[in-house]
Amino acid sequence: MKKHLTALASLVVLSGTVCLAQTPAIVEDFKPSTKNQPQREYPMVNSQGYARFRIVAPEAQNVVVSLGLGGQSGGTVLSKDAEGVWMGTTAGPMDEGFHYYHVTIDGGVFNDPGTLNYYGSTRWESGIEIPAADQDFYALKNVPHGNVVQILFPSPSTGTPRRAFVYTPPGYDADQSKRYPVLYLQHGWGEDETAWSNQGHANLIMDNMIAEGKIAPFMIVMTYGMTNDIRPGGGGGMRSFQIDPFETVLLKELIPYVDANFRTLADINHRAMAGLSMGGMETRTISLRNPDVFAYLGLLSGGTYSPEDLQGRSQVKLVFMSSGSKERPEGVINAEKALKEAGFNAVSYVSEGTAHEFQTWRRSLYQMAPLLFK
Amino acid sequence: MKKHLTALASLVVLSGTVCLAQTPAIVEDFKPSTKNQPQREYPMVNSQGYARFRIVAPEAQNVVVSLGLGGQSGGTVLSKDAEGVWMGTTAGPMDEGFHYYHVTIDGGVFNDPGTLNYYGSTRWESGIEIPAADQDFYALKNVPHGNVVQILFPSPSTGTPRRAFVYTPPGYDADQSKRYPVLYLQHGWGEDETAWSNQGHANLIMDNMIAEGKIAPFMIVMTYGMTNDIRPGGGGGMRSFQIDPFETVLLKELIPYVDANFRTLADINHRAMAGLSMGGMETRTISLRNPDVFAYLGLLSGGTYSPEDLQGRSQVKLVFMSSGSKERPEGVINAEKALKEAGFNAVSYVSEGTAHEFQTWRRSLYQMAPLLFK
Repeated sequence: MKKHLTALASLVVLSGTVCLAQTPAIVEDFKPSTKNQPQREYPMVNSQGYARFRIVAPEAQNVVVSLGLGGQSGGTVLSKDAEGVWMGTTAGPMDEGFHYYHVTIDGGVFNDPGTLNYYGSTRWESGIEIPAADQDFYALKNVPHGNVVQILFPSPSTGTPRRAFVYTPPGYDADQSKRYPVLYLQHGWGEDETAWSNQGHANLIMDNMIAEGKIAPFMIVMTYGMTNDIRPGGGGGMRSFQIDPFETVLLKELIPYVDANFRTLADINHRAMAGLSMGGMETRTISLRNPDVFAYLGLLSGGTYSPEDLQGRSQVKLVFMSSGSKERPEGVINAEKALKEAGFNAVSYVSEGTAHEFQTWRRSLYQMAPLLFK
Repeated sequence: MKKHLTALASLVVLSGTVCLAQTPAIVEDFKPSTKNQPQREYPMVNSQGYARFRIVAPEAQNVVVSLGLGGQSGGTVLSKDAEGVWMGTTAGPMDEGFHYYHVTIDGGVFNDPGTLNYYGSTRWESGIEIPAADQDFYALKNVPHGNVVQILFPSPSTGTPRRAFVYTPPGYDADQSKRYPVLYLQHGWGEDETAWSNQGHANLIMDNMIAEGKIAPFMIVMTYGMTNDIRPGGGGGMRSFQIDPFETVLLKELIPYVDANFRTLADINHRAMAGLSMGGMETRTISLRNPDVFAYLGLLSGGTYSPEDLQGRSQVKLVFMSSGSKERPEGVINAEKALKEAGFNAVSYVSEGTAHEFQTWRRSLYQMAPLLFK
């Protein structure tokens, strides 16, 4: 018993807070988050997944970071040190991967000046990256890189040029005779067309898989999935969301523009649509209303198809459905089973240890990409 | 005298502050700045160039916006209203165009949550746009649009892939036999390769000029002009700045990559270099040390060439030098005169009513573009 108490006491000393004996001590190997602005030390993350924040605001009354345990819930209350600097560490390890957050200072919501901003929750938020065991698949490496092309395409239906990003694989410019299949890939609610590149590293995932020979090159097109803000890159509220105007933009304006301006294989068998969360809902609705456009379908934390949904849809070559293990993964597992029994090529994927966040979707893209255009 | 006093009194009522009789009343036609985040009302700007800020931080002790008169100097102290919201209006009109700013809250530096962020001063800063009389030339219009292509090019000299943006003009993908001249265009100190597109609207300036037949299409390449932060898009301090590593990246890595992967006209007569501020210094140094690379040279608020600098340089087809009228415009005017007398095709341009800011450089690009590749 004495030995046990000694161990407990040493933990208290190490972490600076009262711990249960089974709580591991915080390992002091904190490094700057890879999502920090250039030359910014904080926020930092350690090998266990703890995050440590530092905010300079000497006259502030209270400073709270929206991130706590897990990544999404709770918050971390910072304490002011003798020099007027607010510091704090999450109460436990956070989920691997990318998290949005913000800082509440004296009742106002601001971004952490240490980090880059990412569009989520209909605002540009702070971002932090908890190193993941599998982070290699989306790392920036010395391999041939494709391009991410910003296009401004005409949109008579909304009255303004609209923005999309087009990933073209390495070699796209070298061989002018080659044409490529296309994945139309949608973001989630509150995000925009920048999300899959900035937060998702979709281009790096593709570059790495192509370099390793895991997939044949294809293109990815990412555009804004709402139309209730007329500015390119604008964000909107769910209350006013209607899918019809976006369906028009996607099918009547974007796809024809991409097919006219890039070397695509412009038929159903070389066209996929997938989306995360709200983007999955959009994929599901648009694919069911337009059976002749996409042969490959992906819902990433974005619902399921039933055999009834797809009855008579012999053009469907793949149904990919994924979920974080911390969401409700049984949904996609059961849907896969039912679709397989009905004769469809259905695949479910569950991302271990992640919730409704981008690490789930990075992994989902990584799992889905080799199954497309087969 | 009585009449005069009455007029003065009405001004006091209108503006809410004590004004001199000659200060015009603030016209209450404030609209959201075009650089706001989607659906954000504040900051607002009026037709006279005043900016009005609104920051929610009910428990804060003091809130100061770094922008004041003119655009760069001074600051605006906000006042807390009955609902705990901090409001304030600049003491006078600001210069037309784009301004960086930040908000100091209780002694800490943060961004205004209402605005988009722009990389300047080696951090992502808030941005605001004061409507300019000539804003049409960089407006987003229903004209054919070129692309802004993010490339990640190999850089053995720095050991990591590096990022650049390549503007390709409308029609680039349609006619696969056509090749284009290239302008290498550099940002200023504390900015990065995103500046010319995000703050400068270089792509929209080009799209509009091409649509109006004012220029023949050419490409623009924009990359990070420092090498002291290895991350793509990283920023560095001036103290540790050396031009040699950047010169290597530009001449030995980027230009060969662009010439190999895009349809360029890869010779001195179809290659220009220009830059703003520090980018002008880089243009000057690199062009003088490498006489066979660029025939068209532009220094935008970035110094001058003397006839001695260019002695014997018959390959130089154009020297363009510009300045805001609120900088020291006599430098570029005198340099033009001296260069012309020495037989060079030199052009100076002074942007009326602007300082060392992006409106000067947007206008400079607009003035310089028709003179290139003639």
